[in-house]
Formats: sequence, C-alpha cells, structure tokens
Amino acid sequence: MARIAVVLSGSGVYDGSELHEAILSLLHLSSKGVAVDCFAPDKNQMHVINHLAGQPAEGETRNVLIEAARIARGDIKPLTELKASDYDGVIFPGGFGAAKNLCTFAVDGPDCSVDDTVRKVMLDFHDAGKPIGPMCIAPAIAARVFGEKGIKVKLTIGNDPDTAKAMEAMGAEHVNCTVDDVVVDQEHKVVTTPAYMLGPTIADISKGIEKLVQKVIDLA
Amino acid sequence: MARIAVVLSGSGVYDGSELHEAILSLLHLSSKGVAVDCFAPDKNQMHVINHLAGQPAEGETRNVLIEAARIARGDIKPLTELKASDYDGVIFPGGFGAAKNLCTFAVDGPDCSVDDTVRKVMLDFHDAGKPIGPMCIAPAIAARVFGEKGIKVKLTIGNDPDTAKAMEAMGAEHVNCTVDDVVVDQEHKVVTTPAYMLGPTIADISKGIEKLVQKVIDLA
Repeated sequence: MARIAVVLSGSGVYDGSELHEAILSLLHLSSKGVAVDCFAPDKNQMHVINHLAGQPAEGETRNVLIEAARIARGDIKPLTELKASDYDGVIFPGGFGAAKNLCTFAVDGPDCSVDDTVRKVMLDFHDAGKPIGPMCIAPAIAARVFGEKGIKVKLTIGNDPDTAKAMEAMGAEHVNCTVDDVVVDQEHKVVTTPAYMLGPTIADISKGIEKLVQKVIDLA
Repeated sequence: MARIAVVLSGSGVYDGSELHEAILSLLHLSSKGVAVDCFAPDKNQMHVINHLAGQPAEGETRNVLIEAARIARGDIKPLTELKASDYDGVIFPGGFGAAKNLCTFAVDGPDCSVDDTVRKVMLDFHDAGKPIGPMCIAPAIAARVFGEKGIKVKLTIGNDPDTAKAMEAMGAEHVNCTVDDVVVDQEHKVVTTPAYMLGPTIADISKGIEKLVQKVIDLA
C-alpha cells in the first residue's frame, strides 16, 4: 500500500488550505487505497481572514497547524516530522495559505521566500526521486524552490497570463492546462493541476485532483 | 435544475460542521448538476475546540456563520434567509456543530433544545413536502423537531445503541444502517446516513453521502 503525505497550510481558502482541494485530495487518496498522513507548519498564519466579509480579522491570530487539524480531524503532525524516506510522495493542496503561510508569493510575487521546512520537504522528496503534487497556486512553491536551485520544472497554474509569467520569472516552464487535467514533469516527478485557479465548480476541480492523485501514485 | 440548500454549523468536526461530510455533500450535489446555496445561523458557537489538542480553546469565541463561510468559500447566507419555497430540499451535514450549535444534543441528550430558526427550516420543508437529508449526528435534530410535534420519523445514526436509544426517546424510530447506505422515511421524506458516526474512512462515508444526495434529489 502506497503512503502519501499531504501538506496543509491552515483551514480556509483565503488564509489557509482551500478546503475543497484539501478534502478532495484526501477522498481520492482514500478511494485508491492509499495511506495518508497530514502535516502542517507549527507557526502563526500570516493573518486571519473573515471569510464572510472577505476582510482581515484585525487583532486575531491563528496557528497553521492547529487550524489545519480541522481538516485532518485532529490527526496531523508538525511539518518538521515529515521525512521523505517514510512516504512514497507528497501532495500540496492550494488556497491562499499555500501562498501566505508556506511561502510569501501572495505578497512578494516571484521574489517570494519559502518557509525553510517546506523547502527542505520539497527538495528531500525530489532528491529521493519521489513525486510531488502541488495544485492551484501551490505550484508557485515548486517554481521558487527548484528555480533557486537552477532546476527548471514544468508546471501549471491554469491559464492566467500574469501568474504564468510569475512562474517563469522564478525559473519554471509554465504550460496552460484545463481544470480537468494535469501537467506532468516526468523528469522531476512534479504533477500539477489548476483546481480553483480555474474552477468554477467543485465537481470540475475534483476531476483534475483525481488525475493528480492517480499520477502521483503512478510515479511513486 | 434542482436547487438544494445546505445548512452548516461552523467549520471543523469538534465545534462545527464535519468538513469531509460538508464538502462531500457539495461535491455530490455539484456532480449531479444540482444548484446549491449554503446557510448557517448567525450566532456564536457553543465553544471553540483546538482540533490539535482536542481541548476547548479557553477565552476564544467564533461565529457559526463566519466560520461556515470557510466551507462555502465566502458564498453563504444567514439561516434566517432560507425559505423552503426557494428550494427543492435541504441537507444537514454532521459534526459536533450540528449537536452543539444547531441543537444542544451534545450537552442535553434527548432533552435537547433546537435553535428556533433550525426548527422552523425543518418544519417548513416538511410542511412543503420537500425532502430533508441530515447525516451523522444531525438526525438528532430531526428526531427532536418532529418528536416534539408527535411525528415519528424513521432515521439512522449508524448502530451505536446508546445514541439510537436517545433517538427513540425523542420519538423517532431508529434503524441500524451501514456507512455506505441510507435510511429513507418515504412518508416524511427524511433521508439519513451514518457518515462519521461509523466511518472509518472518507472513501467509506462518501458512498453513503452520495446515496443520500441522490435520494434527496429523487424525492424533490
């Protein structure tokens, strides 16, 4: 039985993991008989967004790991405990948390910095020849981590020209992709799908996420 | 195109809507071409649970509607705006929020009280002859609302003897059910499935939730 790690970044599209993407990842992994463990960084979120108002909740702080535990029904570990040697692959759901808490792409664009533990996890899986599956905006993390190493990975964030340009500025090759499909970098074993970068419905993104999960399993 | 309302109770299994149940409801509704709107009561949660520690977060308060907006990606309305005449049916995902914020079953058992707006919604859909689909522990709400009216509804919470006994104490007929199946009260159009009352996996509960969604559509 394959064992895949899922890296979360909070709980909610505007300040954490996009919930539909995270939970559809868990669904498709479970449906395919894969054992899953969830991880998240044990640190404060960049900020808290009131998802009803679409505005920052001033003065409120929340912890990425504690909030991500909501997605994992309490069964989650600090990202520092994720060892590539224990898993066959790693999946990164999207949501602004991926671009605010795992790296700073939402604020700094192609000049973003990546959380040290997130960078180590991504490089360790790559160095071990194990597949990495970031979706939605999470491919920005891969673009930055591998770009900084001079490694050009092929990936997608859908078809938004400005975001695609930012991926290329970080050293990646961007490929346009529909929501029901994936882009596969066979050499570096990076699998990406647009998810809610395109949407529009949860049924739409589920198709691409299922393909991403299957491809990560195939490459494991 | 059918239009179904989904009533949420926060965001996270221990103090709100169970996230997998809520999002799988949205997935299966979307996959079957149903238009969906989400609603939640605009009031404070009973309490906030730190889902990593499994303990109350002392001194913290969160609003049911604002947190539920995380599940709905911001697209949610106060429960007071839900009119049975606008929808073909209503679905209630589970999680402790259903038994802490929509009613007080988690604290008071069969003597629980039901939120006034939640009671009105359930009775209005029933009186309009439209289907109601509560899952997991949410059938406790139906047991109490209809029991108080002297209406005996047939439902399931899985197979836990004590919880089943509590359903019967409130005036319902409890039927044991497996996680991949539903119990249908044809007369009162109440459809229930055990979901995480049994689990154990997200792939397991998805099967029962898909059947619940299909049956609610069939009865609409």
